Amino acid sequence: MVTARRTTTDTRPAVPASLNLADLHASLTDPALGSMTFLNEIAQRFPDAISFAPGRPYEGFFETALVHQYLYRYERHLREERGLDEDQVRRTFYQYGRTKGIVHELIARHLAVDEGIVADPEALVVTVGCQEAMFLVLRALRADARDVLLAVSPTYVGITGAARLVDMPVLEVRGGRHGVDTAHLEEVVRDARARGLRPRACYLIPDFANPSGVSIDVPTRHTLLDLAERLDLLLVEDNPYGYFTADGEPLPTLKSLDTRDRVVYLGSFAKTGLPGARVGYVLADQRVTAADGTTGLLADELSKLKSMLTVNTSPIAQAVIAGKLLTHDCALREANAREIALYRDNLNRLLAGLSRHFPPGSGSGVTWNVPHGGFFAVVTVPFPADDALLEVSAREYGVLWTPMRHFGTGPGTEYQLRLSFSLVTGALMDEGLRRLAALIRSTAASE
Amino acid sequence: MVTARRTTTDTRPAVPASLNLADLHASLTDPALGSMTFLNEIAQRFPDAISFAPGRPYEGFFETALVHQYLYRYERHLREERGLDEDQVRRTFYQYGRTKGIVHELIARHLAVDEGIVADPEALVVTVGCQEAMFLVLRALRADARDVLLAVSPTYVGITGAARLVDMPVLEVRGGRHGVDTAHLEEVVRDARARGLRPRACYLIPDFANPSGVSIDVPTRHTLLDLAERLDLLLVEDNPYGYFTADGEPLPTLKSLDTRDRVVYLGSFAKTGLPGARVGYVLADQRVTAADGTTGLLADELSKLKSMLTVNTSPIAQAVIAGKLLTHDCALREANAREIALYRDNLNRLLAGLSRHFPPGSGSGVTWNVPHGGFFAVVTVPFPADDALLEVSAREYGVLWTPMRHFGTGPGTEYQLRLSFSLVTGALMDEGLRRLAALIRSTAASE
Repeated sequence: MVTARRTTTDTRPAVPASLNLADLHASLTDPALGSMTFLNEIAQRFPDAISFAPGRPYEGFFETALVHQYLYRYERHLREERGLDEDQVRRTFYQYGRTKGIVHELIARHLAVDEGIVADPEALVVTVGCQEAMFLVLRALRADARDVLLAVSPTYVGITGAARLVDMPVLEVRGGRHGVDTAHLEEVVRDARARGLRPRACYLIPDFANPSGVSIDVPTRHTLLDLAERLDLLLVEDNPYGYFTADGEPLPTLKSLDTRDRVVYLGSFAKTGLPGARVGYVLADQRVTAADGTTGLLADELSKLKSMLTVNTSPIAQAVIAGKLLTHDCALREANAREIALYRDNLNRLLAGLSRHFPPGSGSGVTWNVPHGGFFAVVTVPFPADDALLEVSAREYGVLWTPMRHFGTGPGTEYQLRLSFSLVTGALMDEGLRRLAALIRSTAASE
Repeated sequence: MVTARRTTTDTRPAVPASLNLADLHASLTDPALGSMTFLNEIAQRFPDAISFAPGRPYEGFFETALVHQYLYRYERHLREERGLDEDQVRRTFYQYGRTKGIVHELIARHLAVDEGIVADPEALVVTVGCQEAMFLVLRALRADARDVLLAVSPTYVGITGAARLVDMPVLEVRGGRHGVDTAHLEEVVRDARARGLRPRACYLIPDFANPSGVSIDVPTRHTLLDLAERLDLLLVEDNPYGYFTADGEPLPTLKSLDTRDRVVYLGSFAKTGLPGARVGYVLADQRVTAADGTTGLLADELSKLKSMLTVNTSPIAQAVIAGKLLTHDCALREANAREIALYRDNLNRLLAGLSRHFPPGSGSGVTWNVPHGGFFAVVTVPFPADDALLEVSAREYGVLWTPMRHFGTGPGTEYQLRLSFSLVTGALMDEGLRRLAALIRSTAASE
């Protein structure tokens, strides 16, 4: 133990460092980052409230032994299938590793099996959750103040936050019933260009979007790909919820339809693997041409950025996810059969509960959309569903949800709330809906 | 499995997306990021060369069972010492977690035991390695184009890279024999201010710096703290190597001497814990005042940024490090007794080898510094030690090292090479030095 303590040879009164928030990066006073803080805070202040707020996976299937099983499975893979010796196995787990990750080949197999995507493993970067992937893509694309991102509004707060971190404005594209209004997308791009801006990409969650729950239909997916080519735009496809279909067949991802390298595909194992591993990835197979004419993969540019951001994703965390992939022959749709059924039941229970409390045609003024899967549904109420109401809801009714206003500024969002149906099941969901209905009825009556 | 494949309704010839490197973020064409790529590449091309290049910890003590033992130890801590029930344990390991991390109290205990630093656990942010901590601090401090960072040159390439990611210029401060030239530091700050710039912080590795191996003596540490107050500057103290003392007592960290909240302390478990966990942290106990007069901790601002960068550090990875801390009662100096002895032996072997090949007074023109610990020593040769020579060294002599030019532009750096003595031991080190000496003698003879 070092014996020197907080002493100084200086006898003048100490002046502690003091920083002004106004002198720190602008993102820190941005509503997007404030939203997250507010929402986390209210959840912490009311830990006993029934929560339809967070987009977290169901916890009932977590087993303490899983992490060990998955680590052993990957270890066996390294020895028996990859032929690594004892020292190489240890080095793989414990030493600094490849910046782009070590489980890229397994992820490529998974994409082939589950998505019909033929991915070059070298075009994959394994990231610290999907959030790091978003940051890397935006950091690469935001070269100067002209560069802007497009996103369907309301949108995932994580992409807005990542854009704030690189000072990249986000232009809102209308979503609507088809998930994206392609005519409006084109208009926003042309208008931005007329103002001297450079729209670089459009961020989308085509399957069961967060926060809207809406999916983009197949014809609109094709229209998007054509539009991306015509407008010379990238599409950033985020797919955390696509596996959780409640009815109907899974839709093809944009990436699986992409013959023109227009789609940068973001993947997450937070919902299909284990959130605590914090492993995601980006498939970026676009060609990048340097000034000297040489070309490389966008993934390799993202890897350079990653080397200065997190160096590499923990190989131990990657090994956990690899173990799960190997245990299920890289077929995550099959591996999540229990989860898919559970979320389907939850969605049905939620929709049935809403219908029971607010029978259609009863004049309650309460409506909701009917997603075909995923984690989220949106309820529209006849009064502002704002932070003040959420505070009342948490304190007096013991139920949490998310004001849609945190996800976008579009018309109508102030009357909407997002309900997540991933975490709360059975009787607890029924009780949560009873509380929510009481809040809604009482607020509507007092308007 | 989704049946749709890469098909499109569009029959026009497909035009694949093509990006120009010049349209991507400027960091991607910056020499700092190019350095890392070049150095990684050459290491990969010559895997059988004896390498004095990477600053990686010794691998001989890695044991496959360790990760399981550490995870079990932390699990026991959660149950027995923290009183968590089964569900809470599983949630801690597997679910999304606290943005600032879950092992902050153990890290605070470690800082008290090993460093005499009294740290508020709430002022700690657990990060994805120390690299993420650097990025967070620089992202917070870089508000606009006037903000600049100071760093002792030559400096760690990771801080230069993180600064490039936020477009923050790095002004070089001379190091010299005391590790930092405080008069020059003051001059650089005053000169920058005269040019309308805002020097926000000075980055330092006070103990066994990377790449120089030099430590800052105690009087200079006090001078630095006084200067930081007088110039209203933060000191960013990075301490990855402080535990590896080869002779003499450990020196007090700047943070342990800091009575005026001037020091932001960066910690890493890559060398004292396990690199593969990718767990580091930042202690940021500075007060930040908002426009409305409310104050908070800098750590909480960093946490907001982290929520949009990586969400949280993998709790599984944190659990591995927590298990190691718990196994050793949070005393990492004791836990690393074997490593400390090994690196001491390595350093002595390196210095003895250099003396044998280039006896002082023999007129070889080859000199080197004598660090008192850490991972690195610097050799000065009578000819440029550049990338071209490294290529020759790798191909013809089978030995790798790092041209100092990658770490700074100061006078003399072009004749210096960094030798890392952490990874290569015993007879292999002797053979590596024999090869290096052959390269040096042959190059000197042909000059």
